[in-house]
Amino acid sequence: MKKPTDARNATRRGFLAGAAGLAAAGATGARADNVKNLPPNVPGWTRQLGDGVGVRAYGSPSKYEKDVVRRTVPWLTATPESSVSFTPLHQLDGIITPNGLCFERHHGGIAEIDPADYRLMVHGLVDKPLIFTLDDLRRLPRINRIYFLECAANSGMEWRGAQLNGCQYTHGMVHCVQYTGVSLKLLLEQAGLKTSAKWVMAEGGDAAAMNRSIPLGKALDDCMIAYRMNGEMLRPEQGYPVRLVVPGWEGNVWIKWLRRLKVGDQPWFSREETAKYTDLLENGKARQFTFVMDAKSVITAPSPQAPVRQKGFNIISGLAWSGRGAIRRVDISLDGGRNWRTSRIDGPVYDKACVRFYHEFEWNGEELLLQSRAIDETGYVQPSKDDLRKIRGVNSIYHNNGIQTWAVRANGEVENVEVG
Amino acid sequence: MKKPTDARNATRRGFLAGAAGLAAAGATGARADNVKNLPPNVPGWTRQLGDGVGVRAYGSPSKYEKDVVRRTVPWLTATPESSVSFTPLHQLDGIITPNGLCFERHHGGIAEIDPADYRLMVHGLVDKPLIFTLDDLRRLPRINRIYFLECAANSGMEWRGAQLNGCQYTHGMVHCVQYTGVSLKLLLEQAGLKTSAKWVMAEGGDAAAMNRSIPLGKALDDCMIAYRMNGEMLRPEQGYPVRLVVPGWEGNVWIKWLRRLKVGDQPWFSREETAKYTDLLENGKARQFTFVMDAKSVITAPSPQAPVRQKGFNIISGLAWSGRGAIRRVDISLDGGRNWRTSRIDGPVYDKACVRFYHEFEWNGEELLLQSRAIDETGYVQPSKDDLRKIRGVNSIYHNNGIQTWAVRANGEVENVEVG
Repeated sequence: MKKPTDARNATRRGFLAGAAGLAAAGATGARADNVKNLPPNVPGWTRQLGDGVGVRAYGSPSKYEKDVVRRTVPWLTATPESSVSFTPLHQLDGIITPNGLCFERHHGGIAEIDPADYRLMVHGLVDKPLIFTLDDLRRLPRINRIYFLECAANSGMEWRGAQLNGCQYTHGMVHCVQYTGVSLKLLLEQAGLKTSAKWVMAEGGDAAAMNRSIPLGKALDDCMIAYRMNGEMLRPEQGYPVRLVVPGWEGNVWIKWLRRLKVGDQPWFSREETAKYTDLLENGKARQFTFVMDAKSVITAPSPQAPVRQKGFNIISGLAWSGRGAIRRVDISLDGGRNWRTSRIDGPVYDKACVRFYHEFEWNGEELLLQSRAIDETGYVQPSKDDLRKIRGVNSIYHNNGIQTWAVRANGEVENVEVG
Repeated sequence: MKKPTDARNATRRGFLAGAAGLAAAGATGARADNVKNLPPNVPGWTRQLGDGVGVRAYGSPSKYEKDVVRRTVPWLTATPESSVSFTPLHQLDGIITPNGLCFERHHGGIAEIDPADYRLMVHGLVDKPLIFTLDDLRRLPRINRIYFLECAANSGMEWRGAQLNGCQYTHGMVHCVQYTGVSLKLLLEQAGLKTSAKWVMAEGGDAAAMNRSIPLGKALDDCMIAYRMNGEMLRPEQGYPVRLVVPGWEGNVWIKWLRRLKVGDQPWFSREETAKYTDLLENGKARQFTFVMDAKSVITAPSPQAPVRQKGFNIISGLAWSGRGAIRRVDISLDGGRNWRTSRIDGPVYDKACVRFYHEFEWNGEELLLQSRAIDETGYVQPSKDDLRKIRGVNSIYHNNGIQTWAVRANGEVENVEVG
């Protein structure tokens, strides 16, 4: 396989000359169609008034972006009420996920809660059981934090080999938004924790009444009772009006439509932490309470749904995140992991939030095996899928943070593959 | 006027005790309606399946949030194609504005541009005139930046006295999103600047063919050619598929539907920088090319559209921003500027981006005169409206960054007022 030209290894002057060459290929007069929409050839949209304001009081994307949507995989679950839709990662960039495109995972459908009738109860091993209305919560001191949220089953189909052909399906159960809400610690302090308190059970108000047990240490660390995402109120499918935010931990514990927090001295061993969301190992034992989402990354473009469109300069763009803190570095390989180079992270880098990485390169039609590898501030290095399988086997669908490989073919098409 | 209790001046223990008292008022058994939606009284939404996934491939807010929308003031401009809609600041929090709620300002309506036919020309005093397709731009190195965008006319009606009753109308021509795109410097470097180059003219492809002159120093500093906002492609009303981002400068120069960048040795003196977007002073002279948006802040709640709903603990929430860099501090006054205290800034603080500030306080029905005052990293202090008028008169509608006052009445209603 021909080694591709790497902008990182070239001089900046060389890169810019190359990039200029790319642009110059479409320079004035080079192709007649290139000038049809610039003076003196004025396109239709400049010759007529466009829509006025008030066309959309709440805006929506251009009609040319109508394919940028969450998508489902119908055979994954038995019913649409207990199913999942995936974030179109291959069509996004930056670190913020627009609210309308954040993946969904429901166990009993989307509860429709009247905020006037919403209540949150805090009880159990507390001095004063409390009930909060939404207005009560909004009168408590607010915090704003940007966090990723990843489903424990993200990339779950990859345990037994490359199956889903596109990062929307292999990695699309992750999103990253800014939350506004109340520190869970503040709420628990108000109720007053008894000395025997060790766990908190969070329960949803949906038809599944989803519940999970959370160790008190985490509850008092950085958890939030959130009612806003990206400035506006939570979306219904994200738990409107209130969800639990458990930074860096698997999405299943981020209880939506939150109605109850019960303090206890041991975990509840609910369905979602016994029959589900445990990791069955080769020896028949299961890992349980594997909350933390380890460092992970994925190249979002090029990817099977976003093939390489042309030779010459191209950009690898991807996302990385870690449940243990901030991402320190993301490495890129173009040859299936034989050679690695450091990507360029651009934009905000927060604890337990997505970061965006890039790698500029020139492509001349050679086949590539693209990989990315995240390293977080604890020094943890994202492992290969095979290294994970050696320890965890292939019985589980959860916590697969193995390195993803995309094969770029000579025609620019991209496939989900595995390398040895 | 009775001095309100200030959480900042109280002990933390005192504040928490007070907050607990607030919550305890609604504790279990205290009011029967407080327990109707918690076990054993299970509400309807828990007793039936909700909507499944795929209900909305591109999501939208809860039906209970249908009033959270951009709004217009019909008498402000002659036609809807040349008008403005305002961000509902009083209904948002955090620093990110959802794309659907970013204010609009159009001079010839919303151009509807087919991205396949989009072209951007770079010409004038350059070595190689270039034309870029959208794909060309997407193959150039990307950057991600969070910036505020404020219309020069934001708060313009306030020059001659308090007129519009709500921060959506007095301050709603500002929003803050993450942009993804290309450095303008990179584009200009590819074209090759001639030594005589001093200004860049940016022109839109809409029916107004809006154009503005930008000094080369700014163009080579932090300007961006952006095609994404908050991860997804720009919204049509924000310039789809490409707009100019001119961090910290008045929104009018952030040319939307960008079709042309011409390099010259002097400004173009276009309509938008002569007849409009100049500041007519008392002496009949006009300030011109007053690009920078100086430090400014506004309390978004309580505000006329978001009255105080109850006595006891309440939160003042607001936004601050500066075109000269990062916000260092935001002060709060409850008594019309006689006494000031430092607010609590929570969440990200970026250069030329909005920051969110809070102030917790207890309200017992006394009348308040709420003000906020932003100080940026240059030491600039947001002035009073009267101090601005002394220097700039009241002939202009632009660049009013004066301190806003909200009067809180005994019944919790809030009014836009001026203090002497």
